[in-house]
Amino acid sequence: MNSLEEKTLHSKEIFSGKIITVELQDVKLPNGKQAKREIVKHPGAVAVIALTNENRIVMVEQYRKALEKIIVEIPAGKLEKGEEPASCARRELEEETGYVCESLEPLLSFYTSPGFADEIVHVFLAKGLTKKENPAAMDEDEFVNLKELTLEEAIQYVKEQKIYDAKTIYGVQYLQLQEALTTK
Amino acid sequence: MNSLEEKTLHSKEIFSGKIITVELQDVKLPNGKQAKREIVKHPGAVAVIALTNENRIVMVEQYRKALEKIIVEIPAGKLEKGEEPASCARRELEEETGYVCESLEPLLSFYTSPGFADEIVHVFLAKGLTKKENPAAMDEDEFVNLKELTLEEAIQYVKEQKIYDAKTIYGVQYLQLQEALTTK
Repeated sequence: MNSLEEKTLHSKEIFSGKIITVELQDVKLPNGKQAKREIVKHPGAVAVIALTNENRIVMVEQYRKALEKIIVEIPAGKLEKGEEPASCARRELEEETGYVCESLEPLLSFYTSPGFADEIVHVFLAKGLTKKENPAAMDEDEFVNLKELTLEEAIQYVKEQKIYDAKTIYGVQYLQLQEALTTK
Repeated sequence: MNSLEEKTLHSKEIFSGKIITVELQDVKLPNGKQAKREIVKHPGAVAVIALTNENRIVMVEQYRKALEKIIVEIPAGKLEKGEEPASCARRELEEETGYVCESLEPLLSFYTSPGFADEIVHVFLAKGLTKKENPAAMDEDEFVNLKELTLEEAIQYVKEQKIYDAKTIYGVQYLQLQEALTTK
């Protein structure tokens, strides 16, 4: 079996920001030729499918500068240096929604854009939510509106492209699948 | 209702590559303060859930330099300038797998990483597959191995993190949901 691997011949850092680092790499292809690869490095992130005791999905409405539009997403955020995904999930849930959770179950992780970025999202399921009196504050450059949707409303939001991103569409589909499997 | 919008005060192009462009923006926040935004611009992409007549899912095994690992994905690729998503889906399916399809149904689109990138993936469902005698060639820097998985195998691949990216996990879950809904 031929290896598909690409060996790095040279790597140059183009940009190092607060969130991403951009590298331009020269690689050796499996056939011996060379090519360039544009790589975005990201610290990784978590996302939380959080269900209230009334079985509503906790969402945040947020302006996304990269998209120049407001979309509705499950609570999520970047990993801080050395932070465990589960701790990050609890922190982001509290900061963005004011909720703390009794149970937090890791569901799965996925890369968002393997063609150019190493961002990975760790998805959790949170239950047993209670509102905290004085929740931790969000980042000072972050502004969100809380929304709690039934599964039916969330499915409608997907159709209307108010829910429009990979992790949230995964989350809605996950809950649809659980419902379909338990009512079989 | 307060607007969540962030206005661009200044935008500077940091890098313009073959695939991505990177911008550093100064924005005005809803509270009047300023912040920086790191934005990756991407031409957009398509992904194809393609089912053979034996109901196997067509996948490609591919080395992803950004991840430094081989993963198994549904066929996918970047939009060329001015290319319609459906045309791109047929082109990528043929180039990566040698299959042409009778029917191609748009399922949905999603942003992969709204926190820092504008990449959107348009997902299609392809059926009525036939192998083409002399399929169009892939990009010269692209190397993949074809794999055809049953849904059960694909679910196992997700568990084993051989399938590990957003669009492919969406695709597998989509097929699981369809199966659960039709066997209700």
